[in-house]
Amino acid sequence: MTINAALTELSALLGDRLSRSKPDLEAHGASETHFAAAPPDAVAYPESTGEVADILRICHAHGCPVIAYGAGTALEGHTSAIAGGISLDLARMNRVLDIRQGDMQAVVQPGLTREELNRELRTTGLFFSVDPGANASIGGMAATRASGTTAVRYGTMRDNIRALEVVMADGRVIRTGSGARKSSSGYDLTGLFLGSEGTLGVITELTVQLHGQPEAISAAVCAFERMEDAVDAVVAVIQIGIPVARIEFVDAESVRAVNAYSGTDLPAKPHIFVEFHGSESAVAEDAERFREVVDEFGAEGIRTATRTEDRTALWTARHHAYWACLGLKPGATAVVTDVCVPISRLAEAIEETRADIAASTIPGPMLGHVGDGNFHAALLIEPGNAAELAEAKRLASRMAERALRMGGTITGEHGIGFGKLAYMEAEHGAAWDVMGEIKRALDPANILNPGKVVRGQ
Amino acid sequence: MTINAALTELSALLGDRLSRSKPDLEAHGASETHFAAAPPDAVAYPESTGEVADILRICHAHGCPVIAYGAGTALEGHTSAIAGGISLDLARMNRVLDIRQGDMQAVVQPGLTREELNRELRTTGLFFSVDPGANASIGGMAATRASGTTAVRYGTMRDNIRALEVVMADGRVIRTGSGARKSSSGYDLTGLFLGSEGTLGVITELTVQLHGQPEAISAAVCAFERMEDAVDAVVAVIQIGIPVARIEFVDAESVRAVNAYSGTDLPAKPHIFVEFHGSESAVAEDAERFREVVDEFGAEGIRTATRTEDRTALWTARHHAYWACLGLKPGATAVVTDVCVPISRLAEAIEETRADIAASTIPGPMLGHVGDGNFHAALLIEPGNAAELAEAKRLASRMAERALRMGGTITGEHGIGFGKLAYMEAEHGAAWDVMGEIKRALDPANILNPGKVVRGQ
Repeated sequence: MTINAALTELSALLGDRLSRSKPDLEAHGASETHFAAAPPDAVAYPESTGEVADILRICHAHGCPVIAYGAGTALEGHTSAIAGGISLDLARMNRVLDIRQGDMQAVVQPGLTREELNRELRTTGLFFSVDPGANASIGGMAATRASGTTAVRYGTMRDNIRALEVVMADGRVIRTGSGARKSSSGYDLTGLFLGSEGTLGVITELTVQLHGQPEAISAAVCAFERMEDAVDAVVAVIQIGIPVARIEFVDAESVRAVNAYSGTDLPAKPHIFVEFHGSESAVAEDAERFREVVDEFGAEGIRTATRTEDRTALWTARHHAYWACLGLKPGATAVVTDVCVPISRLAEAIEETRADIAASTIPGPMLGHVGDGNFHAALLIEPGNAAELAEAKRLASRMAERALRMGGTITGEHGIGFGKLAYMEAEHGAAWDVMGEIKRALDPANILNPGKVVRGQ
Repeated sequence: MTINAALTELSALLGDRLSRSKPDLEAHGASETHFAAAPPDAVAYPESTGEVADILRICHAHGCPVIAYGAGTALEGHTSAIAGGISLDLARMNRVLDIRQGDMQAVVQPGLTREELNRELRTTGLFFSVDPGANASIGGMAATRASGTTAVRYGTMRDNIRALEVVMADGRVIRTGSGARKSSSGYDLTGLFLGSEGTLGVITELTVQLHGQPEAISAAVCAFERMEDAVDAVVAVIQIGIPVARIEFVDAESVRAVNAYSGTDLPAKPHIFVEFHGSESAVAEDAERFREVVDEFGAEGIRTATRTEDRTALWTARHHAYWACLGLKPGATAVVTDVCVPISRLAEAIEETRADIAASTIPGPMLGHVGDGNFHAALLIEPGNAAELAEAKRLASRMAERALRMGGTITGEHGIGFGKLAYMEAEHGAAWDVMGEIKRALDPANILNPGKVVRGQ
């Protein structure tokens, strides 16, 4: 067996940092969502770039699959070992290597989580902006081109990574990008690895762009009688150019879920949550303009807050929404959808999706980073219930087709893994073949996270 | 001859839109800077994506080089036909195909220039932000990942292109990206083609992100006794986070050149030019904070303007700087450098460069988009003077090495062409090999702009 030959060599290299314990294998083969368990043959815990390179050289020689593993928060089966091989757990490579205050950059290892990074930055006046909700690892967020609530203002991982160190499939170590804020020096390899989900190389170091802590932050929440008014209000806010730092939509069903989960007493109606960052006077001006716009769409009960604890309380409903939604159907797991459409089609996309889910037999609370045109439905199913899974997949498939018909994408921020592989041909056509050509050029032995992102080889 | 066989077929396809006239060949083989003429064997003028695909199929079959050509404003010999073949002039593919007001996007053909696009947008309240100075084509700007004066606020081409149509080397037509503002759907092919300088495919359509015309614009100019104070002031403005829309540095020698060229009477000292975009109150607040910061660095004679004609007059010196600098040495051509460093190293980088040029025998006025850490020296040489060219190359080489030593890049916005090929190994190391692997995968016959960006094959 090629995998077994690799494991023998890896065991000699790593000692007890190559684990074959059942709990370890199960943990690394599990999924946050509905995918069946697919454990690896072993879990490796490297402690340096050099070790990652050694591991890849061994696996390359033996054709053993290698699945880079961060915090395990991926939603599309990204880390499932569907072809066996090793899970390369980067948890021990979790240090902040450098904070470059003057350049507002930090150099970090991939296993560091975003919350850990922000804790380290607390006294610097700087922060790392990308916030996908889960406490994901920075390496994993880079590998999936993650975004989340603040992307509308500060951008996605694509906008906040300046440079990478990457170990290629054959063990070569390369550096991409630089400490400069821009460059026209050759192909944008940094951008190519961002979103490649561990299929083109293993990210072992990242230079991330930080932002100055805003002088002031204000938050606001308001409700709407009708979902279309909430969405139209968001679209107006974006098109007018009010510089929101976050702008989130939560539908009535999600609000009901949150009230049950968190003990809040929000009216069971569609809500918008918004946040402004800037100077005292700027956030006051922004909040006032926001109020004027949403008033025209019939916003009700606008509440605002500026103090940290009040803002946190105000945003509780949004922060807890995913777990609250799972609670709507006790014991449920979720098929989580993630479409993103041009902002001009957002209201239509959300309305059609709502009607579709309403006509279905399974619940599907909706929420989203609507300032980007990105929204999710958490389609709740009983684990192991094939009929419910089929219905959820039918709804998810219709959402994907709808997003593509409207000029959007099947995934705004979660990525492909193997959960969305079936839609890649529809979204990309011949460009999907080009992705495969790049994959074959950089990983000819197909050892890096095989079966994900590109067409099977 | 493989090229001749291709020309015979191309002539049958294009008729008199395949030109072999001497003036056409000379114009397409010329350089804006110091490179020797390298005319193509013919110039093709396609009028549609289908024709571009047909041309590439023919050239692919015969191994005939194809050099995509926009407005011919590249500075590193990007469009020189150093291996012969055809220049693919996209000037006839210059239409605005769609303006998507609600999404703040436009769909354009590659031969359209940025000034033409902004003229078309004049009544929409929107504008295309990327401004490299020259009236470049949008396709060419995409192919070089161009930026310019507004990148500090609105980003580079990397940040302002949402989707592309690209014809691959073998004539396949693909679409990358989507109309959505973000996506995690597979490899970022859009980003890969941006900056690939026509070596991976020919861009035939672009979806560009537009921005709302700011409600108010204010501009300011000030002088400093010493260059280091001017640069330190810029660094402080950026680090404090004043949201400048443009912030430009022009050295004393460039100011002298502009005074001679444009009849202005600015003091012959280092200057900063700045612009603010926003609401009336925001730009006033920004300008006031700017004044407070630069005062601390000894700024002299701060002048401000808000009316369009006053702002234009104020910025004249900056707008005319390149041509004015050429005028410093009548009949001169220029070796134009383009390094970009982390902002924390900017003062040091500029100071070392100034000392280097001061000790040299040739003039080299300096200016730059310093908010990004990007600056240029125009090293002025007599055409055909080998000693002066060698000296300019020595200075340019030292600038490149300096930028790399400081964690920066050899080119912030001009790209590689073949003028900067010699520094690619130093900047990228093994990553340059990876670029070559991608090139070979997507253009195995090496027909797309051969001899540029990647290592010779």
